[in-house]
Amino acid sequence: MAVPPSTHPHRLLPLFLGLFQGALLLFFALFVTYEEPSAQSEDTNLVANQVYSTFPFFQDIQVMLVVGLGLLLAFLPHYGFSALTHNFLLLNFSMQWALVLQGLLHHFHNGQIHLDLHKLLLSEFAAVTVLISVGAILGRASPCQLLVMATCEIPVYLASEWVIVTSLGVLDVGGTITIHVFSCYFGLGVSKALFWSTQPPLHPKETPTPRSDLMSLVGMLILWVFWPSFVAVLCQPSDAQHRAILNTLLAMSASAITTVMASSLLEKDGKLSLGHLQNGSLAGGVAIGVVADMAMPPVAAIALGSLSAMVCVLGFRFLTPLLGRKLTLHDQCGIHNLHGLPGIVGAAASIVAVLVTSKDTSGSHSSQLSPVGGNASEVVEGQWGGRGAGTQALCQAGGLAVAVGASLLAGLLTGAALRLPCLARPPEQLCFDDSLYFKIQDQAESPEPGSGAEEGALALKEKV
Amino acid sequence: MAVPPSTHPHRLLPLFLGLFQGALLLFFALFVTYEEPSAQSEDTNLVANQVYSTFPFFQDIQVMLVVGLGLLLAFLPHYGFSALTHNFLLLNFSMQWALVLQGLLHHFHNGQIHLDLHKLLLSEFAAVTVLISVGAILGRASPCQLLVMATCEIPVYLASEWVIVTSLGVLDVGGTITIHVFSCYFGLGVSKALFWSTQPPLHPKETPTPRSDLMSLVGMLILWVFWPSFVAVLCQPSDAQHRAILNTLLAMSASAITTVMASSLLEKDGKLSLGHLQNGSLAGGVAIGVVADMAMPPVAAIALGSLSAMVCVLGFRFLTPLLGRKLTLHDQCGIHNLHGLPGIVGAAASIVAVLVTSKDTSGSHSSQLSPVGGNASEVVEGQWGGRGAGTQALCQAGGLAVAVGASLLAGLLTGAALRLPCLARPPEQLCFDDSLYFKIQDQAESPEPGSGAEEGALALKEKV
Amino acid sequence: MAVPPSTHPHRLLPLFLGLFQGALLLFFALFVTYEEPSAQSEDTNLVANQVYSTFPFFQDIQVMLVVGLGLLLAFLPHYGFSALTHNFLLLNFSMQWALVLQGLLHHFHNGQIHLDLHKLLLSEFAAVTVLISVGAILGRASPCQLLVMATCEIPVYLASEWVIVTSLGVLDVGGTITIHVFSCYFGLGVSKALFWSTQPPLHPKETPTPRSDLMSLVGMLILWVFWPSFVAVLCQPSDAQHRAILNTLLAMSASAITTVMASSLLEKDGKLSLGHLQNGSLAGGVAIGVVADMAMPPVAAIALGSLSAMVCVLGFRFLTPLLGRKLTLHDQCGIHNLHGLPGIVGAAASIVAVLVTSKDTSGSHSSQLSPVGGNASEVVEGQWGGRGAGTQALCQAGGLAVAVGASLLAGLLTGAALRLPCLARPPEQLCFDDSLYFKIQDQAESPEPGSGAEEGALALKEKV
Repeated sequence: MAVPPSTHPHRLLPLFLGLFQGALLLFFALFVTYEEPSAQSEDTNLVANQVYSTFPFFQDIQVMLVVGLGLLLAFLPHYGFSALTHNFLLLNFSMQWALVLQGLLHHFHNGQIHLDLHKLLLSEFAAVTVLISVGAILGRASPCQLLVMATCEIPVYLASEWVIVTSLGVLDVGGTITIHVFSCYFGLGVSKALFWSTQPPLHPKETPTPRSDLMSLVGMLILWVFWPSFVAVLCQPSDAQHRAILNTLLAMSASAITTVMASSLLEKDGKLSLGHLQNGSLAGGVAIGVVADMAMPPVAAIALGSLSAMVCVLGFRFLTPLLGRKLTLHDQCGIHNLHGLPGIVGAAASIVAVLVTSKDTSGSHSSQLSPVGGNASEVVEGQWGGRGAGTQALCQAGGLAVAVGASLLAGLLTGAALRLPCLARPPEQLCFDDSLYFKIQDQAESPEPGSGAEEGALALKEKV
Repeated sequence: MAVPPSTHPHRLLPLFLGLFQGALLLFFALFVTYEEPSAQSEDTNLVANQVYSTFPFFQDIQVMLVVGLGLLLAFLPHYGFSALTHNFLLLNFSMQWALVLQGLLHHFHNGQIHLDLHKLLLSEFAAVTVLISVGAILGRASPCQLLVMATCEIPVYLASEWVIVTSLGVLDVGGTITIHVFSCYFGLGVSKALFWSTQPPLHPKETPTPRSDLMSLVGMLILWVFWPSFVAVLCQPSDAQHRAILNTLLAMSASAITTVMASSLLEKDGKLSLGHLQNGSLAGGVAIGVVADMAMPPVAAIALGSLSAMVCVLGFRFLTPLLGRKLTLHDQCGIHNLHGLPGIVGAAASIVAVLVTSKDTSGSHSSQLSPVGGNASEVVEGQWGGRGAGTQALCQAGGLAVAVGASLLAGLLTGAALRLPCLARPPEQLCFDDSLYFKIQDQAESPEPGSGAEEGALALKEKV
Repeated sequence: MAVPPSTHPHRLLPLFLGLFQGALLLFFALFVTYEEPSAQSEDTNLVANQVYSTFPFFQDIQVMLVVGLGLLLAFLPHYGFSALTHNFLLLNFSMQWALVLQGLLHHFHNGQIHLDLHKLLLSEFAAVTVLISVGAILGRASPCQLLVMATCEIPVYLASEWVIVTSLGVLDVGGTITIHVFSCYFGLGVSKALFWSTQPPLHPKETPTPRSDLMSLVGMLILWVFWPSFVAVLCQPSDAQHRAILNTLLAMSASAITTVMASSLLEKDGKLSLGHLQNGSLAGGVAIGVVADMAMPPVAAIALGSLSAMVCVLGFRFLTPLLGRKLTLHDQCGIHNLHGLPGIVGAAASIVAVLVTSKDTSGSHSSQLSPVGGNASEVVEGQWGGRGAGTQALCQAGGLAVAVGASLLAGLLTGAALRLPCLARPPEQLCFDDSLYFKIQDQAESPEPGSGAEEGALALKEKV
């Protein structure tokens, strides 16, 4: 089934990227413009305020995705270049692809698409789904497979997001259901269809080393720090955004402590597992997204953060091995524990929150950030668009069902497509290995052993 | 005296954390709420402005503490996981603990505590003291000991900060006296009481490797970049904040150059010491905090930055060995050189600044950030609350004395408590070693000598 | 020609730095003050807004220069400390030196220089030129040589920037011509004059290892993320700044994808070269600077990003070896491919943009950021100061010619000065080696081999 690396599939990558960039140029040339510069002084002020209020959040999210997530994925000791570079490539590809599709679907006015920072941000959010999903098959898929996966996932995400947020009116300001749950089950679907009933044996290069685990830990810390920006960027400014930031901070702080507690309880001798730390500390951020801007008391954020961290660590300890044995489900990074389970916990919390809170001022994904000085209280005059709490709670549950169902189905189909031989899935013995995709200078130029460590080479020379 | 690692003390950590999280949940459920959403458009605007003005500073400080300080402490080659994780755990624990205590002490209105970003920020500042203090005993204390230390230090800090800032009216916008000096002498007190008259011999794992020193250097650079946010976040907006940012930038820039100069002069062959670089470059930031927003000329900031860097490097070269010999004082990270000496230099500078500047517009630690659009000039109408320069100078000196005295005393008592056997201080041969607290995958799963780890090398040596 | 390391030249570094800090203190004491605090409430508001609008950009740029660029340069496996530390030292030295010279040249009013964040930012921009230029001789020059180089480059840059921006009225908001092209040819001039006709052989320590390449890759990603702040910080607020941010994001995204495509096409077996990735992904940011705020359609930004990445990768593949053979030109980091070629592409694009766009709202380097609420539309009422498009296009070409000519000439002269024996150029066998400048603890204290390096262990195993 696996195709040995040949010159043919390697040519597919530049071909694919070249065609895509060409099509993108054509699309942009025909349809995309910037907004007309605002003529009036007042508008100028407004645009400036938008830039100052959105751009720092946007930068934080870029740091998370490019540096933080890249490093988090670099826990495979011989796959650091691939983890960082594939993540970087997929982010850019998916973002551009989402920009095109979103433009076509939502923002086409008089044959023109007006580009602004907010639309770029929405495309970036779409790209996040791809970056999460690939975690399920990290190290076992070629760049071509990953790009095809991104090509399939983005339109499904946009459709699913439209159904969940616009049709069903689900409240999900931090993307817990639309992004995390969706991308998790999409990735698991792809993994299932791609590997089907073969449970791959433990690969010798699959085990992290202290050095690669340290990189991954730093990546987790970067994600942890900037997570509030991710959750709060699309909130209504002022109160809702303030609350979303505080709730996220509380949830993630509780997650951090609970993860240490749970990992210490579950591991032998009370030692901590780095895998638990790298994932559990972020679980609170995943779960809180869907309720972050709702009018719930701070204690709920702490409880949710603790609960989701516990679920995440328990998932790693018990559920992942079980799924591997029973369903031959392969989940390299444990995305089910970090995005799936905490996402479901968050969705459940949102149902409770809707039912409990009688008065709510939360604003959902607004298609356009309202101006800083705008009357946020006017925007959300009717609670949940005039619905009762019961209806809204049903909608939240429905949104979860749509996210899980659509993503699983689409993921399975996409995974089947990835089995096409021309996509050059790496053979088992070359999995988790940068040297398949990168010109590693040491190997090419120094036939000597001692690749890469001065101390080794020097010590060896002295010994010999 | 040292307790061998057994299953018993390892159970203490999750127990402690579990009880704490439970108590926290109870406390939050009973007493903590968010502010009522602001009903009027004008208030909405105000809250939004507060978020946009405080949140970027807050994020910068989070990066400093979680990533920058974590990496700076990762200079011990076999203790990187512990340095990053214990730092992360202590930050979250101390922040939550400070939130509770501060709420009880200062913000209790009608049985309710209204949580906002500013109060979280103040708790974060309290947590910083713990993160600094543990530097004195890094690598030689168990997580349980560190948590007990944090439990003791936070209330003492809050009391001392109240005396210094509120009672004495000391000006210290960047926390030079209240945070840096306090936490340094607290840490030294703990270290003294914990190790008492035993001067531990040089441990083989205590020496940094090039790789771990590089990590630490990157951590220093991250701290260096974001330090102005730490100093300026609590300033009055507008002029005072602008001045604080500029003064900090100038002082840190002077520190960087002076450190290279001083290290090159003191070391053999004019080579640079990485320890000097990792600390001296930050000394200016420690010292400038207390005078950052005062109306002093820019040259004073440069002079203070240079002076404190020089003092720091000299401290490493001469004072640390002396204290080790004479007082058997153990200071693993040299916190006395980075936080103690530059803090005292800064306090002295503040006395001079108060006496020299006849007109001052500085605002002290305000218990609530005034709105961006507020009239900052009204707030500080009376100079130092109407006192004369001489009185204020005396107060600055008094604040320093309180910080040193209270922290030393409390630190000694805390250190004595840390000698309790149940806290599982690591035995000497297992100090500075991650494998005591972390499940290192290489050891557990691959009996092979092993790809990627120093343990491999050690195992190999034993084999050979 | 090369001077062996002795005690004498090592004393020059602290002497030089000490004299410089002393002179700086004197200069600041005599001439530099802060602005008088604004008395009126409205002004206060204005200053606060300036701080909030400029400071986040400033911090982003600091992260880029101190952490991102430092790590990018750390691709030499035995030269990481030097890369990070020399970069850090040169940034601070050059910034202070530029502050003095700029103060003398531009900001002297009534014998006083009023310091503010904007002036610090301009000095930081000047320092960037030095940090880029030293890339040409990285690893082959002593700190003293680098400081002398900075001393010479800053005044030439300030003069050249004055001619280009103020006299010729060249539009270059992101510093493509004034910073990138200038510093590239200055660096190449220095390299040419320093090594002249000797083509140094491949040094064994010149080859990156996977570990050092990973560090460098992370540095690239940090630079990539924050680049929009660098380009947009000096734009007119509001529309122009918004457009500059979007154009930079689009250009850099296109660069990332095109780099992968081009590298995969040019390398054997379709593998990626890390050198290409580390540079090509940033090429779009270099090129876009000069046109970022112009009223051009988004497609132009994408095309420019793609084109410059392609030129950069082709430069590495074909031009660098050619220049090395034909001109014996030594360019360690390939600054000609990252800064020279994309800079020229950008300058050419600006000529086209000026000729094509009939209506333009771009604002050039403004000597003072106008207030957030200011009427940006009024400021740029006359297009290019009333000139026609043809004249402005000529000016753009003239600016490019001035940047190339002045920098090459000044670089050659500076390089000749660096040959002075007292500046202690490192001997060939000690190039690319931290141990010449840093007290490396491992070497000094543990004669044991292989402490802490996996490759050592592996190599040893194979031998055994």
